[in-house]
Amino acid sequence: MRVLGVDPGLTRCGVGVVDGAPGRPLRMIGVGVVRTPAEEEVPRRLLAIEDGLEQWLDAHRPDIVAIERVFAQHNVRTVMGTAQASAVAMLCASRRGLPVVLHTPSEVKAAVTGSGRADKAQVTAMVTRLLRLDAPPKPADAADALALAICHIWRGTATDKIAAALARTTTTTRPKEYRP
Amino acid sequence: MRVLGVDPGLTRCGVGVVDGAPGRPLRMIGVGVVRTPAEEEVPRRLLAIEDGLEQWLDAHRPDIVAIERVFAQHNVRTVMGTAQASAVAMLCASRRGLPVVLHTPSEVKAAVTGSGRADKAQVTAMVTRLLRLDAPPKPADAADALALAICHIWRGTATDKIAAALARTTTTTRPKEYRP
Repeated sequence: MRVLGVDPGLTRCGVGVVDGAPGRPLRMIGVGVVRTPAEEEVPRRLLAIEDGLEQWLDAHRPDIVAIERVFAQHNVRTVMGTAQASAVAMLCASRRGLPVVLHTPSEVKAAVTGSGRADKAQVTAMVTRLLRLDAPPKPADAADALALAICHIWRGTATDKIAAALARTTTTTRPKEYRP
Repeated sequence: MRVLGVDPGLTRCGVGVVDGAPGRPLRMIGVGVVRTPAEEEVPRRLLAIEDGLEQWLDAHRPDIVAIERVFAQHNVRTVMGTAQASAVAMLCASRRGLPVVLHTPSEVKAAVTGSGRADKAQVTAMVTRLLRLDAPPKPADAADALALAICHIWRGTATDKIAAALARTTTTTRPKEYRP
């Protein structure tokens, strides 16, 4: 199973691709960050994120996309950006018929470190170890995206079947009241 | 100037197209709601919204897209859906090189009723009057989208020039650290 992990953000959108299956060694396929300039208008930043994610999807053809679940935090402005970047990631995956799964930050931390309250350094250390990397993944921002992909490989088998079935169903999504 | 107003929402995304210019009569070109079923997964709902908005853009070729600015409200779940739907609207417009402008609910209310604290009935009544409709616009949800378009026609001339210039600029949006 190949998973694209996405740590959504308007300024930095972490992406990491991992191959693996429960009980078997994991392999990092790619890691990076799609950045957009803060001085740019939001619509154009979303377009740049879409463009970047499309290229990752084209290059690595994941079976599934795991995205960090967005919660309301203290900083409303950040939450909005995160929600918007995450919407773009969902849209890109959904457009290709790929299943999308969401994991909370605690689920991800618990999966890779054993504790839902682990700090960033601990997550990075475990990601480096689990993927047998010579050095911590760079850019550092993207370690979370790899952790998300790993979390999904270990947790996600049952969820995957449901998500894949949902992605396959051809329900009428055309809205009834739609009349341009 | 032809404006597509979008009142973003995951369950109901109001859309309204208005032709007009400051100091000249307004004309309603179309009104509707793009709906997505609540039981569907969010990624597929965003895809349905994209599909619906693309059809509105194709059918009416607006010069500009005016979207309601999303604020954090009491209900976090609603805000997330609104932020996500609004991201899809921004993306669709931006992909076509259309300028996007955001107006707050108070700006919209103040523009069409004279008071930033007007209620929904008052907004609907004024939209009906200003567009010289025989009856309030249906579906009722979409009156806000029309109000948004009207607000933009009346307020937006200076803003438009800036937004259009920004949409035209060909700055490098390809992120530097991007390496799939």
